[in-house]
Amino acid sequence: MDTQNLAKLFQHIQSEICLGLEDCDGSARFQSDQWQRAAQGSQFRVDAGGDAGGDAGEEAGGGLTRVLRRGSVFEQAGVNFSEVRGSLPADLSETMIGLREEQPFYATGISLVVHPFSPLVPTTHANFRFLEVGDKQWFGGGLDLTPYYLFEEDAVHYHQSAKTVCDRHDLTFYPRFKKWCDEYFYLPHRRETRGIGGLFFDYLGRDAGDNADRYFPFVEEIAAKFLDCYLPLVRRRKDLEFTPAQKDFQLLRRGRYVEFNLIYDRGTLFGLKTGGRTESILMSLPPEVRWEYNYQVPAGSAEEQLLEVLMNPRDWV
Amino acid sequence: MDTQNLAKLFQHIQSEICLGLEDCDGSARFQSDQWQRAAQGSQFRVDAGGDAGGDAGEEAGGGLTRVLRRGSVFEQAGVNFSEVRGSLPADLSETMIGLREEQPFYATGISLVVHPFSPLVPTTHANFRFLEVGDKQWFGGGLDLTPYYLFEEDAVHYHQSAKTVCDRHDLTFYPRFKKWCDEYFYLPHRRETRGIGGLFFDYLGRDAGDNADRYFPFVEEIAAKFLDCYLPLVRRRKDLEFTPAQKDFQLLRRGRYVEFNLIYDRGTLFGLKTGGRTESILMSLPPEVRWEYNYQVPAGSAEEQLLEVLMNPRDWV
Repeated sequence: MDTQNLAKLFQHIQSEICLGLEDCDGSARFQSDQWQRAAQGSQFRVDAGGDAGGDAGEEAGGGLTRVLRRGSVFEQAGVNFSEVRGSLPADLSETMIGLREEQPFYATGISLVVHPFSPLVPTTHANFRFLEVGDKQWFGGGLDLTPYYLFEEDAVHYHQSAKTVCDRHDLTFYPRFKKWCDEYFYLPHRRETRGIGGLFFDYLGRDAGDNADRYFPFVEEIAAKFLDCYLPLVRRRKDLEFTPAQKDFQLLRRGRYVEFNLIYDRGTLFGLKTGGRTESILMSLPPEVRWEYNYQVPAGSAEEQLLEVLMNPRDWV
Repeated sequence: MDTQNLAKLFQHIQSEICLGLEDCDGSARFQSDQWQRAAQGSQFRVDAGGDAGGDAGEEAGGGLTRVLRRGSVFEQAGVNFSEVRGSLPADLSETMIGLREEQPFYATGISLVVHPFSPLVPTTHANFRFLEVGDKQWFGGGLDLTPYYLFEEDAVHYHQSAKTVCDRHDLTFYPRFKKWCDEYFYLPHRRETRGIGGLFFDYLGRDAGDNADRYFPFVEEIAAKFLDCYLPLVRRRKDLEFTPAQKDFQLLRRGRYVEFNLIYDRGTLFGLKTGGRTESILMSLPPEVRWEYNYQVPAGSAEEQLLEVLMNPRDWV
């Protein structure tokens, strides 16, 4: 894998996604924070020197965090790019490649979370990444949708768009990655999925007899088509009127989003516990959130319909 | 240890604390939810039958969750009592008593979190519990304060009150438990403590040559005196005017509270991952919370003063 070009591609996709979200929002603009990975406080031993921006030479790495806030459609959208290299401790190497000794590693990718203001517009998350640990390489990532009010045609569009991309590359991808997504974004203590799913995949190309390169065209296309899965839903729903009670329900559901990210999400915990940039990692959390003791959805309500789907994941296509 | 009387004592203290908080609030009342521990979805194998309320006989156990909401002083206060018995899996037994085999266990205690509406009134948390695993018994718990604006005399009162109780039992308690508290309520990814500390203790009486009984008078007294540590601060600050910006800062700091409880708090994670009652565990989370990407406290502000203390724990007495 030509990692230098791969990092450039991820940066290009980051930029395209930000432009698309700005265009859809119509008022707010993304701010940029360029950062460098600090060796202090990190479990990683990162190589010294270098700047955060450019090529994948000897530097410890860094990233570009882009955040749009208080837009007319999006309450907050964060799109991160990062590229990091260093040395992975033995226990993490064991988890990732089954070899219990410190290994050189390289990682690059983008991750994004969009929190719309309207409860009728769903939240979405996506992540596309490449990892190299020792002599193993792989792709991981996915995209998923978290609606507050369920429009079935929106769920179908999101899943169908993702499936169409998958099917062009491998007919087994969509069913495997859809199931993996439902299993991954699950809150056992609530007995609910975080949202209505999408795709989740990891370790593509890592194992013997396989290679990461052959998954590159799929990852490139699904990353490039991400906005086609999501923006049509935003355009359909962004101008619908909603009630204060619907907004309130969104804030409560955002509490579940926080619970998932802080208790279960491997990427979040891995990042925080290995000295990643806290503000870039936690830009996934919604700007405004509520918890209410023992909240119950009203019987027969739209809120109950959503919960029913979260407790019993459906096939959308 | 006479666990039947101990559970009754904890229930009595729960009731006294609720009365004290209601009296201070002046308008809202605590609601009660009695619940029984369900064996399903739990890693514990709990004994069948019994009701949640009374004596420590053969039942699986249960608890009484009391919550006050939308008071004139307290936005939310939750005070839990629980009493549970069953069988602890080998890995947890190993962590707790160093013996890697399934063990019978018994646990009873109270835990509480108070979230005032005014950012000038501090949040507080306390927990007092007794555990029996196999042939080992011990007490654990503590109390700690999370102010949003620092009044030094309040911090001194809280710590001095706790120290006075400690000193009546053992002069080593306060310095040990104060330090333990600063170490426990720490967010590595923020390099901050959750608040300005208090007491934290665990495994009191567990080890060979020691016994839980001798710590009972201390635990009983500190639990009974908890409100004396806290309520004077509430009375001093509850009628002070505050600005919307101060309220906003409180909501952001509550985000840190959520981060600590969901990422690091052993009791929360232990409860959620072993099938505890989710709503009783997560009543510790504040009703309303905000996150803001890369928020920085203004230089020279009261907010910066607070942060300074959270990054460099002080001796208050």
